[in-house]
Amino acid sequence: MTLPPFIRPGVAEIPDSLIRAVANAAIGRADVIPLWFGEPDLPTPRFICDAAAEAMRNGETKYTHSRGIPELRDTLARYMSGLYGVPVDADRITVSASGMNAIMLAMQALVGPGDNVVFTTPLWPNCLRTAMIMGASPRGVTLEHGPGGWRVDLDKLIDAFDDRTRAVFLNSPGNPTGWVMPGEQQQALLEECRKRGIWIIADEVYARLVYDGNVAPSFVPLAEPEDRLIVINSFSKSWRMTGWRMGWFTAPAELGHTLAKLTEFNTAGPATFAQHAGVVAIRDGESEVKAQVDRLRVARDLTFQRLAAHPRLTLSRPAAAFYAFVRVDGMTDSLAFAQDLVAKHGVGVAPGAAFGAAGEGHLRLCFASSPELLTQAFDRLERALR
Amino acid sequence: MTLPPFIRPGVAEIPDSLIRAVANAAIGRADVIPLWFGEPDLPTPRFICDAAAEAMRNGETKYTHSRGIPELRDTLARYMSGLYGVPVDADRITVSASGMNAIMLAMQALVGPGDNVVFTTPLWPNCLRTAMIMGASPRGVTLEHGPGGWRVDLDKLIDAFDDRTRAVFLNSPGNPTGWVMPGEQQQALLEECRKRGIWIIADEVYARLVYDGNVAPSFVPLAEPEDRLIVINSFSKSWRMTGWRMGWFTAPAELGHTLAKLTEFNTAGPATFAQHAGVVAIRDGESEVKAQVDRLRVARDLTFQRLAAHPRLTLSRPAAAFYAFVRVDGMTDSLAFAQDLVAKHGVGVAPGAAFGAAGEGHLRLCFASSPELLTQAFDRLERALR
Repeated sequence: MTLPPFIRPGVAEIPDSLIRAVANAAIGRADVIPLWFGEPDLPTPRFICDAAAEAMRNGETKYTHSRGIPELRDTLARYMSGLYGVPVDADRITVSASGMNAIMLAMQALVGPGDNVVFTTPLWPNCLRTAMIMGASPRGVTLEHGPGGWRVDLDKLIDAFDDRTRAVFLNSPGNPTGWVMPGEQQQALLEECRKRGIWIIADEVYARLVYDGNVAPSFVPLAEPEDRLIVINSFSKSWRMTGWRMGWFTAPAELGHTLAKLTEFNTAGPATFAQHAGVVAIRDGESEVKAQVDRLRVARDLTFQRLAAHPRLTLSRPAAAFYAFVRVDGMTDSLAFAQDLVAKHGVGVAPGAAFGAAGEGHLRLCFASSPELLTQAFDRLERALR
Repeated sequence: MTLPPFIRPGVAEIPDSLIRAVANAAIGRADVIPLWFGEPDLPTPRFICDAAAEAMRNGETKYTHSRGIPELRDTLARYMSGLYGVPVDADRITVSASGMNAIMLAMQALVGPGDNVVFTTPLWPNCLRTAMIMGASPRGVTLEHGPGGWRVDLDKLIDAFDDRTRAVFLNSPGNPTGWVMPGEQQQALLEECRKRGIWIIADEVYARLVYDGNVAPSFVPLAEPEDRLIVINSFSKSWRMTGWRMGWFTAPAELGHTLAKLTEFNTAGPATFAQHAGVVAIRDGESEVKAQVDRLRVARDLTFQRLAAHPRLTLSRPAAAFYAFVRVDGMTDSLAFAQDLVAKHGVGVAPGAAFGAAGEGHLRLCFASSPELLTQAFDRLERALR
């Protein structure tokens, strides 16, 4: 008798992360400069850690509300209202156990076998894996790269919709490209999706990592509260809380009940004391967010100047996020190149192929690092390119 | 033009928690004695909180390994090996963002549309919701209640298997019944599942909450490392860490890679500093685990003596977990009864119907509370039963 498959085929087929394929072999090597993951180099600001420690001491170590503690939902609603200049009610806010988990729950709420999800590529691969786990098909539309940087052809994006398109997934500002979708395109897409009943899942976790202005264009101020729109944010990047696993949804109030149910069946949300620290992070963290952007701007400029000057490298100066997505002339196998780069030269980068076929020929470097380390990394990269 | 459904029908159909239907109306009311949720009444032991605070101060606030920090996986492997007297390699351990999330990831790894999952009922409803989210059908087998307490008829359980049965889900010690599956039944079931290639998902989160001996019968010492067996444990109940969202899988090493991938696409695991606190909880927490069981034994005995003496109430003395699952003579609508009980008498309990049709006619009371509060709650319950 043949036994059924060990692992469900739909999951077994999901390819491994090519970022991990480079990093796992060399993680922890002291001589490696790690620019492979999307993470600020500094730890969480001390006042946020202290708030979590105090909440633990106060006994905030038990189960709490499925949608998050009311104080955090209220704080996030005020934050979103202030940031975008439109009223965002706490009824629309649900706390999530990371931006990643919010994407997974959005897919659970919306898509299943037979559905498709349209997205732009290159894209951080984890986003679309969630649709695949739920049995839906991802359908990619390639971003274009020109003198003005990365952009989407909106007609091409909308042409990818069919009657099984349940959602369009947009990550702007985008990982790995730093792409920012202009407000006019967002408005036009919103109107098209409204007509067809297609959900927009907007992963806006890099919203505050912008180098001109205070915040990136967002769907939040454009949409009506009841529009089929899920905006996902995270504490990870701007408040330097990657290891905390905490984010939030802004969605129609009507979806809140479903998000509560799904949260209950998946994680019950972030740690209770972490949610109390989240209140403090949002309330008192503005100067930290701004200081981090100032520090990242220096890193971005250094990165752009060094890399753009190299004859074999092409990149745009990213207007947002903390990645340089660099085209390497003559490189056809980014995985092999990245593996060689870390093994022989001690620089850890993400291979462009990790972000879909459209990313081949590129490397992604996270520049959330000190100028000294970056300079050293670029020196090593130049040696590798010789 | 008709728009597609707002929420995916497979998820919209998942019924609400009847426990929440009772609790949400009265949560936070100071006069209510809350016995509705399955949670120790005391907060997390201080030394565990201190370990987390120290890890935060040490900068353990960033992304970490998808399967958990190596130190925690090693600690858990040693703990499991010592507890069950068989070698359990760290290769078989994956840290999870709660026992609940481990159940969800197990279902993602194994089941999809067309599959079914066999389980015993009454059962905590969230367990099977995960299979439904993945499009699989739950198939319940009713436990039997006799003079010796709750038991499963193993022939009936195996008769429920068909060629679309992908997994059998067992929660022993069980919520809400306190049911414990004997080792001989576990052995026989394991042999049957081995022949058919059916996975056993054993939710053993109450393993240490037993009132005779040190640990409940487990599949761990019976199975070969490569058997299709996923054992799920949690820090929540025994280490009083419900709000931390941390648990672990013991599974074939061959499944580890899939669990790592799924963890990456779902949550990236528990907070990094919480994992460091987990090491300390396991290493230094044995006396706390034992002291909690001693305290719960007193509560269990008080609960049994008071309730079994009442002419309208029937229950067995639970050998494990911290629930009394009480049959109420003449009660046909447990939800209405529980709603009335909290509204008029200020005692919060879970209606038996929340645990499946087989639970109707019962109430579940969590006795992880002080003797004083329990006595007060039982006085109120007696008044309601007059």
